[in-house]
Amino acid sequence: MGKHATSPHAPARRCDGSAEGHAVPPGGLSHNVAMKWLDEVKWDAAGLVPVIAQEHGSKDVLMFAWMNREALAKTAELGRAVYYSRSRGKLWFKGEESGHVQTVHSIRLDCDNDVVLLEVTQQGHELGIACHTGRHSCFFQKYESGRWHAVEPVLKDPESIYK
Amino acid sequence: MGKHATSPHAPARRCDGSAEGHAVPPGGLSHNVAMKWLDEVKWDAAGLVPVIAQEHGSKDVLMFAWMNREALAKTAELGRAVYYSRSRGKLWFKGEESGHVQTVHSIRLDCDNDVVLLEVTQQGHELGIACHTGRHSCFFQKYESGRWHAVEPVLKDPESIYK
Repeated sequence: MGKHATSPHAPARRCDGSAEGHAVPPGGLSHNVAMKWLDEVKWDAAGLVPVIAQEHGSKDVLMFAWMNREALAKTAELGRAVYYSRSRGKLWFKGEESGHVQTVHSIRLDCDNDVVLLEVTQQGHELGIACHTGRHSCFFQKYESGRWHAVEPVLKDPESIYK
Repeated sequence: MGKHATSPHAPARRCDGSAEGHAVPPGGLSHNVAMKWLDEVKWDAAGLVPVIAQEHGSKDVLMFAWMNREALAKTAELGRAVYYSRSRGKLWFKGEESGHVQTVHSIRLDCDNDVVLLEVTQQGHELGIACHTGRHSCFFQKYESGRWHAVEPVLKDPESIYK
């Protein structure tokens, strides 16, 4: 409503609150067709994209991580979640140490082409453990009355996960 | 399994694949107690934190955005989603133009204290429209056979949303 001087038309608007840019950068015609879907992802300055992992069935949001181009390609190729560890500076095959592999059912991309949503089955434990603390989901801290409260149980001692 | 020379103990491990740092930075004693929960969030270099909005009931992941400290404080205070628009460089009261306000049921924080998960009801339309394209969710593009396919319907013409 006149809060900023941009066109109100949808194609110029973005869901991060921006009203600039194109959702889909034009793919170069010289690119290999098989890789075009990777070119369509809007990688950030560090070549990464945020990724949300949601559990198949329960629809619980399990975790949040990052992928680079290679990680996303590997995820699609292998059907298991492969992230990029920003601190280690390398691919992170989820479950490579814990055994808590994530089988991937679907890969989605948002309207701005800059966030990925994975639908996964969390392997390695009867009730899936996605979190390094031994909990089902990484989102176990809930805000209440001015404080964060840990509201989900530890399903397995982390010391016994990373042996 | 010996892939990097760090301690296998959980407190030094993180869910983004890092094995460094503390999940909860110690809160300064001089801080106002009421603001301590905001200090516990690990804001990035730009003072932001990624935010996932998940629909109450359906558990659909609706959108992904960012918050700064003020946005998170406002969200908790008002019980409606307030994000930070990186391109506009200011607070973004979700629904301020579209009327598609998000009522907030819960606010969660992940194990590394650097990602927020909101449980919301998407207001303004019978089937909630979170996306600027007029779709229910921003994650309407699905990967299949080497391409992204738009697999969710447009519920309302964006031109009529942003009038």
